[in-house]
Amino acid sequence: MSSLSTRRSADSVTSLKIGIAGLGTVGAATIKLLHAEPTHGGSGRNIEVAAVSARSRDRDRGVDLSGATWFDDPVALATSDIDVFVELMGGAEGSALKSVEAALAAGKAVVTANKALLAAHGMHLVTLAEASGAPLLYEAAVAGGIPVIRTVRDGLAGVPIKSVLGILNGTCNYILTRMENEGLTFDECLAEAQRLGYAEADPTFDVDGFDTAHKLAILSSIAFTTELRADGVSVEGIRGIEPADLMAARELGFRIKLLGIATMTEDGVDQRVHPTMVPLGSALAETSGVTNAVSIRGPAFGELVLSGPGAGGDATASAVVSDLTDLARGLAPTPLGRPTSALMPFKKPEAGGHRGAFYVRLPIADRAGAFAALAQRMASEGISLEQIVQKTPHRPDHLPPLQEQTVVLVTYTTDEAALKRALKAIADDGVIVRAPHVIRIAQTL
Amino acid sequence: MSSLSTRRSADSVTSLKIGIAGLGTVGAATIKLLHAEPTHGGSGRNIEVAAVSARSRDRDRGVDLSGATWFDDPVALATSDIDVFVELMGGAEGSALKSVEAALAAGKAVVTANKALLAAHGMHLVTLAEASGAPLLYEAAVAGGIPVIRTVRDGLAGVPIKSVLGILNGTCNYILTRMENEGLTFDECLAEAQRLGYAEADPTFDVDGFDTAHKLAILSSIAFTTELRADGVSVEGIRGIEPADLMAARELGFRIKLLGIATMTEDGVDQRVHPTMVPLGSALAETSGVTNAVSIRGPAFGELVLSGPGAGGDATASAVVSDLTDLARGLAPTPLGRPTSALMPFKKPEAGGHRGAFYVRLPIADRAGAFAALAQRMASEGISLEQIVQKTPHRPDHLPPLQEQTVVLVTYTTDEAALKRALKAIADDGVIVRAPHVIRIAQTL
Repeated sequence: MSSLSTRRSADSVTSLKIGIAGLGTVGAATIKLLHAEPTHGGSGRNIEVAAVSARSRDRDRGVDLSGATWFDDPVALATSDIDVFVELMGGAEGSALKSVEAALAAGKAVVTANKALLAAHGMHLVTLAEASGAPLLYEAAVAGGIPVIRTVRDGLAGVPIKSVLGILNGTCNYILTRMENEGLTFDECLAEAQRLGYAEADPTFDVDGFDTAHKLAILSSIAFTTELRADGVSVEGIRGIEPADLMAARELGFRIKLLGIATMTEDGVDQRVHPTMVPLGSALAETSGVTNAVSIRGPAFGELVLSGPGAGGDATASAVVSDLTDLARGLAPTPLGRPTSALMPFKKPEAGGHRGAFYVRLPIADRAGAFAALAQRMASEGISLEQIVQKTPHRPDHLPPLQEQTVVLVTYTTDEAALKRALKAIADDGVIVRAPHVIRIAQTL
Repeated sequence: MSSLSTRRSADSVTSLKIGIAGLGTVGAATIKLLHAEPTHGGSGRNIEVAAVSARSRDRDRGVDLSGATWFDDPVALATSDIDVFVELMGGAEGSALKSVEAALAAGKAVVTANKALLAAHGMHLVTLAEASGAPLLYEAAVAGGIPVIRTVRDGLAGVPIKSVLGILNGTCNYILTRMENEGLTFDECLAEAQRLGYAEADPTFDVDGFDTAHKLAILSSIAFTTELRADGVSVEGIRGIEPADLMAARELGFRIKLLGIATMTEDGVDQRVHPTMVPLGSALAETSGVTNAVSIRGPAFGELVLSGPGAGGDATASAVVSDLTDLARGLAPTPLGRPTSALMPFKKPEAGGHRGAFYVRLPIADRAGAFAALAQRMASEGISLEQIVQKTPHRPDHLPPLQEQTVVLVTYTTDEAALKRALKAIADDGVIVRAPHVIRIAQTL
């Protein structure tokens, strides 16, 4: 039973020497948190910021770096005399990739908050870590301050999981919350989020769903013990959402959230990111602003929901510090919860297999027969409609009336492929004046 | 860096031999879950149910026990040829205590779901575990299937925590939910819960708050890195709650929940269990039925909320299995997250120091001046009232009117001691016809 001993070896009294590459918000917050609690989880081992690297040496970051050796080159830092390389630079390629590779190859433990890096090179890095025996920890990479990696990897270790889904991008959730509460357009809310620092100047990564997809791929790999494959995720962002959709959703008893959803099917792991209507009153629907929430389901435990800060320097730093504390305590979980040899190969289900209920917003020409034509096309594909709402957009009195109306349909459970065929036929009929907008409805969230 | 290696030693290919004492709902569900997933988290190590013990050997539990050695005596099982002793008998003394002591003394790892045992003898057992180097894991002891022990011990390791609070008893939450939704009395709901198997024949442990107190003391010790002390918890249960309180709460924008609340104060760790008014719309207010929810707060990460099944055989078994998988993986967290030598001594703040807003229900004599007398006593103690509602209980027409009325007060933040003095003076005045009922209001949950 020696491998189960909780006794600590004699080297536990020495410092854990860490090198931090990247001194932005998260880097500075990590150093502050480390300075604030010197005993670090009672490991008896001090965590010492021995070396740092960043783009600019002169910037004042509000933290004391006097004891740390400065490196201009993060790759040089990664292989210097440290125990743990902490990568907080971001980016899937370049310095982040090179320095993490170098650290792992040199047998240094790595702690990173970089989901893009893991999504692009996860299997490569995990294999490197395995070869050198170096731990690779990344609690901060998914859902910021929510310890969801640990929950799935350890808290549900050995327990079958059916699905993992959630709100994994604070920027999108902030924008959707503001659009709904204030009746603003997507563009107005995005500009506001950029002004407040919640969104990047180039928002593609967030609003088009890629950031959510990266996090989902990481979670999915741990939950279903498959290889990490971000290219298997179907991705749709929130640019197409209009205030009318949010209002209609509320009238129907739902709220629109950008969800990442990974489900184990008989056919493989289905990984999707798309706007989803979730029932009002559910934990996900009530998660507003930059907060994240993750729902995990399985036959034994039912549903677990974790919610908390998905971003922010301090919250992300607390996830980094928890990984460092694991290392200081001498704990080193396997990166994906099990050896790569024990992972199942990733398999994506055949496309078009998704079934569910759908919300469809159709801008129709305001002419006799349009409505009947539309209903006929749905019926031909065997799609039953649960609700049909026809709306005329409000226009100020001094403007001429629009020559279009909006029809909102809610389908019963149907095949996505059948719906696509019906919508194509409707477009071909010339009944709609612009492309329809389709949002999936989650009936049991 | 050898202590951080993720490589597994050669003995990881052998089975992890476990002995289970107690084959009730949780025991049987644990065996089923172990049989369902043979690879157990990819540890490469089979978890083998090598031995079992229970009160009756003949009962059919729906699981295959043919490969397991039977022990009549759990203490003999605990020291037999096994790697891990799984204690699922329950009870703070007797067989549970003796067998866990014996296992730890013999250097066997222990996994238990027994919060009463840990609350009564936690420090003693942790010390035994430390002395022999045997792991002692108990994820299942708090909040059933929610991996909250890991979240606090590992996920927030090294990160300062300000408070831990939550709904930790499914029986009480079920009763309160039913009382509110159906307008039933406490006694009616308790009888129903007993019929459905959600409450024991002797419900004291649950409804008087002791079970919540035990779980809170365990969580509190890990969160605040203090010695585990269940006798430091102030406990008040839900027997005094009337349907009128639940209705009044809703009118005021609250819902009544039995919460366990542990807060780090300058003066020590404040541990309290009592009915609490939580704002409608908050995660805790929306946690209904037998579901549990835990909120953890700290300056770095803000608030984390975890919710999920707080009880039930399958959910509790998944927590037991996650502990066993940790052991199969060769991970052995320190029982309280740090060595006992690194724990702070438990210190309870001085009594009477609690400040907050209060809900007070007062049955007053229906006579002129009663109301004025009551308001005067509150004013004398410097207690400001945010709301005052006077209600006459509904009576069928054929019955004579009651000679009493109910006054509901909501105070602004005040000292609990001042409120107690005011209520004593009101009672001495003869203004109230029965004892008042006081419920704390959580203003920022």
